[in-house]
This record gives sequence, structure tokens and C-alpha cells, in this order.
Amino acid sequence: MTLTIPDPNASIRRVRRGEIVAIGSELLLGGRLDTNSLFLARGLSAAGIEVRFKSVVGDDEADIAAALRTACGRADVVVATGGLGPTRDDRTRQAVARFTGRPLRRRAAALVAIRKRLAVWGRTPTAAQLRQALIPAGAEVLKNPIGSAPGFCLSWKRCLLVALPGVPREAEQMFAQSLVPKLSEGRSRSGHATIVHRLLHTFGLPEADIEARLAGVIHPSRGFRLGFLTSPLGVTVSLTELRSGRTALGRLERSVSAVYQRIGAYVYGEDQETMERVVGRQLAARGLTLAVAESCTGGLIGHRLTEVPGSSVYLDRVAVCYSNRAKVDMLGVPSHLMEKHGAVSAAVAGAMANGIRRRSGAGLGLSVTGIAGPGGGTVAKPVGLVFIGLDAQALRRPLVQEFCFHGDRAAIKLRASQAALNFLRQWLLSRRPTHRSHRDK
Amino acid sequence: MTLTIPDPNASIRRVRRGEIVAIGSELLLGGRLDTNSLFLARGLSAAGIEVRFKSVVGDDEADIAAALRTACGRADVVVATGGLGPTRDDRTRQAVARFTGRPLRRRAAALVAIRKRLAVWGRTPTAAQLRQALIPAGAEVLKNPIGSAPGFCLSWKRCLLVALPGVPREAEQMFAQSLVPKLSEGRSRSGHATIVHRLLHTFGLPEADIEARLAGVIHPSRGFRLGFLTSPLGVTVSLTELRSGRTALGRLERSVSAVYQRIGAYVYGEDQETMERVVGRQLAARGLTLAVAESCTGGLIGHRLTEVPGSSVYLDRVAVCYSNRAKVDMLGVPSHLMEKHGAVSAAVAGAMANGIRRRSGAGLGLSVTGIAGPGGGTVAKPVGLVFIGLDAQALRRPLVQEFCFHGDRAAIKLRASQAALNFLRQWLLSRRPTHRSHRDK
Repeated sequence: MTLTIPDPNASIRRVRRGEIVAIGSELLLGGRLDTNSLFLARGLSAAGIEVRFKSVVGDDEADIAAALRTACGRADVVVATGGLGPTRDDRTRQAVARFTGRPLRRRAAALVAIRKRLAVWGRTPTAAQLRQALIPAGAEVLKNPIGSAPGFCLSWKRCLLVALPGVPREAEQMFAQSLVPKLSEGRSRSGHATIVHRLLHTFGLPEADIEARLAGVIHPSRGFRLGFLTSPLGVTVSLTELRSGRTALGRLERSVSAVYQRIGAYVYGEDQETMERVVGRQLAARGLTLAVAESCTGGLIGHRLTEVPGSSVYLDRVAVCYSNRAKVDMLGVPSHLMEKHGAVSAAVAGAMANGIRRRSGAGLGLSVTGIAGPGGGTVAKPVGLVFIGLDAQALRRPLVQEFCFHGDRAAIKLRASQAALNFLRQWLLSRRPTHRSHRDK
Repeated sequence: MTLTIPDPNASIRRVRRGEIVAIGSELLLGGRLDTNSLFLARGLSAAGIEVRFKSVVGDDEADIAAALRTACGRADVVVATGGLGPTRDDRTRQAVARFTGRPLRRRAAALVAIRKRLAVWGRTPTAAQLRQALIPAGAEVLKNPIGSAPGFCLSWKRCLLVALPGVPREAEQMFAQSLVPKLSEGRSRSGHATIVHRLLHTFGLPEADIEARLAGVIHPSRGFRLGFLTSPLGVTVSLTELRSGRTALGRLERSVSAVYQRIGAYVYGEDQETMERVVGRQLAARGLTLAVAESCTGGLIGHRLTEVPGSSVYLDRVAVCYSNRAKVDMLGVPSHLMEKHGAVSAAVAGAMANGIRRRSGAGLGLSVTGIAGPGGGTVAKPVGLVFIGLDAQALRRPLVQEFCFHGDRAAIKLRASQAALNFLRQWLLSRRPTHRSHRDK
């Protein structure tokens, strides 16, 4: 049985409408954000489906049915996540059965998959786990390659309704393996447009300045969307081309070029790129190693750099010096420098970068010292004051940049870590790569 | 003009229903999560309003109107955030006017507030900013104490509809200042119940085992909800008492006690508590200082500990040793130990904890070494293998724990950091505090 996306009037409505429904009371009350919706929005968008609504609903069967009915009433594709587990709280199966009028049936394919999965873990299914094989009549069972709960999809009226488990890794794999081919099939048959969009991540220019620089260059219109998203990591410019046809990508590229012409110097990456990946690629391409001395960022720079697989190739060590004595012991910062200028000063930032570079033998030393707050600020040295140092053998003396960031403790730490990595990125850009890399911004 | 929450049938429906609508295309496409809904859910819940649905919608006027109409049709209180700014993308005002049939009027109170706010910043309002004074007829204007966009609220049919700006700091302050009193007023007049709920954060026991241990002790019922939320940081048990009356808190406390009786040894904190705060309080109460040696966690433990204001009192330093040479240089781990046992081994974890403690002079040394993946694993030492070491002057030799975590690189780093902090917490629990702390778990 194969289900594809119904397409009653492809010639009128070129872009299919998608909707995401996240199910689980913990998403409403427990202080937890629904992270599934991020990859789902990206995945649907890549398949040419515009996500118009997302909703979150608790474990109440009637509420789930209401949310799904509303979604299916206005979208071409609805992806629901959560509520497929073995416990009594898991009501998605029942809710779908209720509002579509298709009774639950124990399905052999689902039973086999559940038994197989549990056998891998050396267990036999409990009665509760076997309940996961109940699937609405007429639905296609979607295999779960890493968990026990199968998903399913069915056509209801003009909508394709997909139910995936709530566990992000499981939902992500099932979406990629089972749904992406199905959604693409729907597209190619109906001649729908692909939505193309691009995110350009910038650092160092306020949102208002970016808007001002782009005004008059690219114009939002019915088929084009321009958005700005500000966070402590910078401003992301989002460009979306909704119009159909083969020229969509060309139009998007022209808009992207226009943005680069105006603010290209501030763009550090596109789409899923992160600052730590960009810097890591630059270091690898130049055969350079890095050592970091952190104070107010407390290990965040090290944490970010080591989120990248393979970072041990270029990252040698990080010293987090949260006391003055640690700065003396670990980096050899002279005590008199801290007495004269204070631990948060350009002189100490430079000495930290130089100290960690010399002690580690790494090619580059990067340092941060600052006041993350909320306490510890003075009139002369307010909360948010941060100095960033960079040292390399080629330099006669360390380079130092001074910043004053706003925000709370967490935001100041994030901004300082981003500024430090960006400082390193900009310096590396000026150095020619020694090793060739196929992709190096 | 004062609006309170309509309450057509207080005696039948004791708990008011709330709904959150987040407006902004960047929330759908830009990879950004809606963080406003977290404090709104907590705030509404504290005011006795059960949040049943959340939804996210883009900047399309018709879509916003559709989402708000659906929400107002089934909830007593609807809080919308976003779409109140000065740009053309900001369509919330128009959408509300459209679906309620109440035309937009330029309101003197809003105009004055906008001019005042901009004057503080030394500016005069542009035509676009003055558009923010357009408010639906009959709505109450809500002051924005820190931004230029005013909010508003109005009664529509049986629902109180509130519109707040999307900027989290502005929305949070406006909610606290303007809405909390209004919502409480609604409660006291109608005799509605307060929802009480509690989160218990555990680490070290799988969700299935927690469920099994709690089965038969506390029973979900019409007025009581029990939920589980699993993440790399552990399992959070959520208890919610929905029934009305003064005894609600007493009933909740009895359920909480029952949970503690069964799994109390695994509970490290409640509600907004985090592991790093708990450990920080324990260290401060015992007058102890800490030094950390990280390998596979890459600085994450340092980052987490330094998210807590005042952590410089007990955190001395962190050494992130991402190369074997760094382990020798920074911690004095003997090379022969790494050659014999490998860098990921119990022996090296112990030597790292001992080394960082002795070199720093701190009271305690904590260490982590492991394989975060995706590369680097072998049959004998798979990805996810982690050793945690703890050393103190009072110990004859370092304590070491071995773990094998599942998940991707980011999850393994998180689990390892949580296991290390939990190991420290459990050890500290066995030591009597020297300084009295008014709150020490």
C-alpha cells in the first residue's frame, strides 16, 4: 500500500500546505520546548511544503482529536509527533481512530517490528508494548528503525496525516527514511513547486542596521519573504522564495547575492552552519592547532568547539581560569599585571592568549576575560565588559578586542563566546589555507 | 476600563482553559523555538488556568485570524505574542480587528506611551512606529514598560484575548505587571481553583523503572496528572493537581511524598532547580572548592557550573585536555598510564581527578574521560564509554565510576556531564555541611 499526497488542484495552489502537531502534556507544562518541529519544518520545506501552523496539545484524547481535525481541515500534509508510546498517557492512536472513524486494528507488520526491536535489546514485549501494534484501519505502518513504537500514515479527506513517535532521534530517522521519499513522490507527480530558502548567519551588526542596509535592495513580495532573527549568536537573515517553477532557485540566488553585497563581511555561515564548525574547518584547512584560555565564558568556547566531531584534530586544550591564581598557574599571567590593570583588562587578555599558546605549543592562543554578571560590575568596568585576545607565533604581540555586551549572564557568555570565535575566524580568513579544503568560508 | 475573565459556568468547569498563540514566520521556518510559551504556561498555570493548546502561526493575516478564532472558540483566556511591531510583517492588530469585527482606532494612551518610550532613547517616532498605536475598538491598552509596542486585551464572546509583543523580555514584564493581577482578579471573583504542580528531576533510573516503581502508589485520575519526561539530563516526573479547593496543595504534597518514598534517592531537584545549582549550593555550604579536568565533555561541565551566578566562590579552574600531551602537562597524568590503559580508562580518570586537585590546591577534583563519538570507538571501548573520577584530600585514592551512554555526540556529552555532577552531588551528600545553608538538598 502506498499513499501519496492528495493534490486536488495543483494548478491553482502551487505550494502545498503543511502543519505540525506536537503531542505531549510535558510540552505544555514541563518547561520543555518541542525540538521536533525544527527538523520537521526544515524537512517539509525542503520537500516543497510550506509549514503554516504548528500546534502543541497535551495527552488528552479529545484535545488531540480536535487539534488533528483542525489541522487536517486546512493542510495538505499534517505531521503529528508523540503519544505513540506504550503507556496509558499515549493517546494518539485512539485520537486518530476517533476523529477519522477508522477503528484500531492489531497489525501483523507492526507486531513483528516491535518483537524484533525488543529482541535486539534482549527483551520480550509486555502487554503494554504490544498495544503499540494497534493502528487505524487503512493506515500504512511506518517502521521505527531505532525504537519500539511504529508510526503510521493515512489519507483522510484531502490530507495526508502522519503520526511519528515523540523521541526526537526516532522521529527524525523515520521522517528521513519513510516520509521524504513519499513527499517527493507527491511533488513530482503533481508538478508542485519546491520552496527554496536560505539562512545567512551574521555577527557584529545590529538588526536595525542590517534592515537599513538591505532596504531598497531586496523587496518582500507575495512570492518572497525576508525575515530577521536576532539572538545572542547574532542576526540570521532568512530569504524564502515561494514562487513555483525552475527559476525559483535562480531568483533566490540573486537575492542572496544582493545580501552578500551589502553585509557580506558580517556573514559567517549559511543554513545549518555554526560558527564552531566554520572555525574548525578553517583551522583544519590551515593545519593549525588551537588552545583556549577562558575566564567569564567558563568553558563554553571549549564546549562549542568540541560539539564538532573530529575537533580533537585542531583543539589541543582549554584552560578555564576562574580564579586569579589559576591564571598565574595555568597561563603564567604575571600577578603584577592583574594587580595593575585588573583581571578584566586588555593587558590580561593578551597575556592569557600568549600564555596558553606558549604553554600548549599550539599554533594559536585565544582568550576571553570579562564580567558576566549579575554581580561584579563597577562604573569603570560594567557587567558585560569583555576583552578577547588572540596570539600566534607570527604576531609580534597578541591582538585584543574590547566589547560591552548587554543581556543576562547566559546571554553575555554566549555573546562573548561568539565574539571570540568570530575574531578567530576573521583572523584566519586573512591567512592562506595550507591544506586544500573543498568547502571553506 | 477594566476587563476580567468571563466565567459563564464556574460551578461546572472549575479550571479555566488557556491557550497560547505565538505569531511570527521566523518561529515556523527560521529554526527558532518559541521561548515565550514557557513562561506563559507557567504564569497561566500559577493563575489557575490550564494551558490546553499552544500554536504557532506565521505573519500571514488570514492565518493569524484563523488561529486566534480557533483558540478563542475553545478557551477562556488566549494569550498571543508577536506581530505588534512597526513593520509591515506585523499583522496581529489587523488580524484581531478582522476576526472580531472591531475596527482599529488610533488610541491616545498608546500614542503617548510610544512617544515617551522613544524619547527615553532620544528619538521621535516614525510613521511606522506610530502605527503601533492602532488598537481594536473596545480593547484595553497594555503598557510596555521597556519597549515601544503596546499590547492590548479585549473580551470576545466568552474569551479574554490578550496580545503581547514577541520580544521575550517585554512580553514577560507585561504579563507580570498587567495580566497577573487581572487573571487573579478573575479567579478570586469566580472561586476558581489554583492548579498546583511539581516537577521532580531524577538522574540514574530509566523511565520504565520509574514508572514501574510508582505503579500502584499514585494513580492518575480525572483531577490528577502524572507525567514523565526523559532527556539526556535524566527523567523528570511531573505531578499536577487540577482539582479545586484549599486541599489541592495538601493532596499534591501527599503524592510528592509517595514519589520520594519510592525513588527519592534519584531525585536531585524540584521545579526550576538544576543539577549545577544544587551542586553549587552543596559546595558553598561545605566551604569546599572544586577543580575539574574534562576530556570528552570538552568544557561543558565548566560551562554548566559557571551558568550559576556566584560560582567563582567555589569553582577554581577547569582543564579541558583534548590531547594526551595536555593531560600530562596540565594534570601530571603519567604517560605510561595512558600507554598501558589508554586515555579512556579508570586509571586515567583517577589520575586526572587527583592531578587537577593537587595542582589547583582545590578541595575536590572531578574528572571525565570518555568517547563521545561518532568516531573513535572500538569493540573493547565503544562510543559512549565514560569514566568519571572524584578525588578529595580525605580519600585514600580517587573514586571512579564507569558508564556506557547511548545517543549522539551531543547527548553523550550531556549525559556524561550530568553523571559527573551527580557523582559529586552524591558524595557531597555524605559530608556534613560546615556552613549552614537555609536550603540544601
